[in-house]
Amino acid sequence: MTVVEARQHPTPSDFAPAPTEADRTRWEEADRAARPRRLVRLRERLAAEGIDAYYGVTHENVRYLTGFALGDGEDGGSSGQFLVGAEDVLLFADSRYTIQAARQAPDARIETVYGDLPERWPTLVGSVGARRVAVEAAFVSQAMWGRLAAASPDVELVPVEGWIEADRATKEPSELERVAAACAVADRALAALLPAIRPGRTELEVAMDLEWAIRTGGADALAFDVACLAGPEAALPHGSPGDRPILSGAVLLFDFGAQVAGYRSDMTRTLFVGDPSPRDLSIYRLVAEAQAAAIGALTEAAKDGRPITGREADGIARRVIDEAGQGERFGHGTGHGIGLAVHEQPSLGKRSPETPLPSPTVFSVEPGVYVEGETGVRIEDLVTYEPAHGRVERLTRFPREILVVGR
Amino acid sequence: MTVVEARQHPTPSDFAPAPTEADRTRWEEADRAARPRRLVRLRERLAAEGIDAYYGVTHENVRYLTGFALGDGEDGGSSGQFLVGAEDVLLFADSRYTIQAARQAPDARIETVYGDLPERWPTLVGSVGARRVAVEAAFVSQAMWGRLAAASPDVELVPVEGWIEADRATKEPSELERVAAACAVADRALAALLPAIRPGRTELEVAMDLEWAIRTGGADALAFDVACLAGPEAALPHGSPGDRPILSGAVLLFDFGAQVAGYRSDMTRTLFVGDPSPRDLSIYRLVAEAQAAAIGALTEAAKDGRPITGREADGIARRVIDEAGQGERFGHGTGHGIGLAVHEQPSLGKRSPETPLPSPTVFSVEPGVYVEGETGVRIEDLVTYEPAHGRVERLTRFPREILVVGR
Repeated sequence: MTVVEARQHPTPSDFAPAPTEADRTRWEEADRAARPRRLVRLRERLAAEGIDAYYGVTHENVRYLTGFALGDGEDGGSSGQFLVGAEDVLLFADSRYTIQAARQAPDARIETVYGDLPERWPTLVGSVGARRVAVEAAFVSQAMWGRLAAASPDVELVPVEGWIEADRATKEPSELERVAAACAVADRALAALLPAIRPGRTELEVAMDLEWAIRTGGADALAFDVACLAGPEAALPHGSPGDRPILSGAVLLFDFGAQVAGYRSDMTRTLFVGDPSPRDLSIYRLVAEAQAAAIGALTEAAKDGRPITGREADGIARRVIDEAGQGERFGHGTGHGIGLAVHEQPSLGKRSPETPLPSPTVFSVEPGVYVEGETGVRIEDLVTYEPAHGRVERLTRFPREILVVGR
Repeated sequence: MTVVEARQHPTPSDFAPAPTEADRTRWEEADRAARPRRLVRLRERLAAEGIDAYYGVTHENVRYLTGFALGDGEDGGSSGQFLVGAEDVLLFADSRYTIQAARQAPDARIETVYGDLPERWPTLVGSVGARRVAVEAAFVSQAMWGRLAAASPDVELVPVEGWIEADRATKEPSELERVAAACAVADRALAALLPAIRPGRTELEVAMDLEWAIRTGGADALAFDVACLAGPEAALPHGSPGDRPILSGAVLLFDFGAQVAGYRSDMTRTLFVGDPSPRDLSIYRLVAEAQAAAIGALTEAAKDGRPITGREADGIARRVIDEAGQGERFGHGTGHGIGLAVHEQPSLGKRSPETPLPSPTVFSVEPGVYVEGETGVRIEDLVTYEPAHGRVERLTRFPREILVVGR
């Protein structure tokens, strides 16, 4: 495996440029054109189950079905909740959100709802003629459920989970384009950061530089908080950057992503600061081998038109690490779907469903090996999986070679 | 009202310095010392209601009772959920969080829980000897409620709402100190930003500069996303910064805050870019008068030892605006409590409870007047209310004068 020194480092111009206004307009139009099909799928399922309407509350689902976008962590109250009937889509918004709702969700009927959803409930469900309503039971609170049930005793609330989430796992072309655009923003940001990495700067300082490069480089927002972990901290698969200095002769792990027009990227790179230690190099090569094995198997399956499950793909990466005697040090799954949410279906793990991966779809492939208190390595790329076109494509283009910085 | 030109502008050194490591250590120790009293209050309430344990899931409540801190928008799954029994406090954490949990919550018993809470539930409730468990019904999903009920049919789940939230409205001295420290970070950040505000820069650019000043100026994080709204956009009480240029001869509204050791600040300042228009000046003076009237009435009440309700305080600000014929243009409440959450009890609004404000407490006073499509003005400060000491103190120290920038 090649060791890449500073003079051969990637630079931002090696990757695709930031999305343009024309891209954004095209994606918006594609979404608007796709929403009727998405609604047809939902209505077919409602009809099959003898249910009249669907009450949803999650940010990703309202964006998928109506176009209305709430920011991460933005608590809209009832705003952004929605009700899909046989004919209409009702989008709830209080006065803070009505202008935004009308602009982003031109095909929905905006209903003004404040903190008074239970009082409004009989009228709202009545207006779509619903007697049985599917409810996102994993996201509607027990208290709200009770209030809605009491408000309309003659309307049956049917708990459902994962309906729209399952639809979202299969991606449309314009969704894949946006994930790819988010990957390119992240690729460029990390390339721009490389010269600023040196021993003595803290994880937090460098994480903020990377965040800045992402947010000023074409992203609408981060996909999630940047992880930047030095040396032994890299052994924490879920650590946060701290006031700890970057160490020479140790690894530096970045896990980060961008958000572009609602779609997210996710990438992990483990860099080497100063002279790589033989132990870190050997772990790195093992993890890279495991990742390549999984991506290779997915590619073969796609070419052969042979269905493959997320569990199988996980098993292939895991076997490489197991056979090197490091299986205990790879405690998480091999990958997860991504799109409007950072983590969505499908999953690639030991207990993932034994059903074939959806198609086309996009997910991460991210094996890791973590030595507690000492070091950690993870390499994470996003790949599209499109057996209909016989291909698996890596969307994160930042090199996976052994990259040496800060010396 | 004084018009403040650039040469008299506040500078960062006019405000309290960033918190030190010693401050943070002191706050951590104060929290650890306070937690037993917080737990006693909860256990007394449980005992009074004949309930054996409390199952909580919200980030703020777990931090308040155990010390365990999750970031905004961080989805820990079951990690960070907790169970308070008569003797023990159980904190749930999966392997990603066990190290953090042991460090931040030294007095809790860490229980490893993955996505398997329903399977673990009988053992967990059994270990604290509970037969009746209070559950945060506004935050536990209907689906999870059903699974827990099915897992332990002999354990009664009792829906409760707002118990710990009500306790959190009364602030301890070290909580008020942290809100004040967060206010000072925000004051300094806005002072540092002033020279960078000029017509033609966009709302987003300036909002990001302000965010940077906050996050590199002593904050752990933003309190919430920065709002920066130019001219007519300021009429949206809940707008987000966009690619819109800052306009000369118009207002520029900032709504922002910092987070320091878990506690948040919240401040709004409406600045004047270039020559203020007579209309904007007149609205500004009205809003300032309404705010001063509410703070004055609160101060009088505190001095006289006379209880005052949030509804009364709201009425005082509202009357000033109503009497100027602008009542229809002040569509939100006058204020909200703040602490671990941006919005918490008490509330100062038309429909706020007719019970006296808790004491000591801290809340915003933020009247506004919004002229749709034209302009908007809001002035927001945080004040502590401590009738026991006969005082109301403004924690946000940034001047409220008419401040002219960008010319």
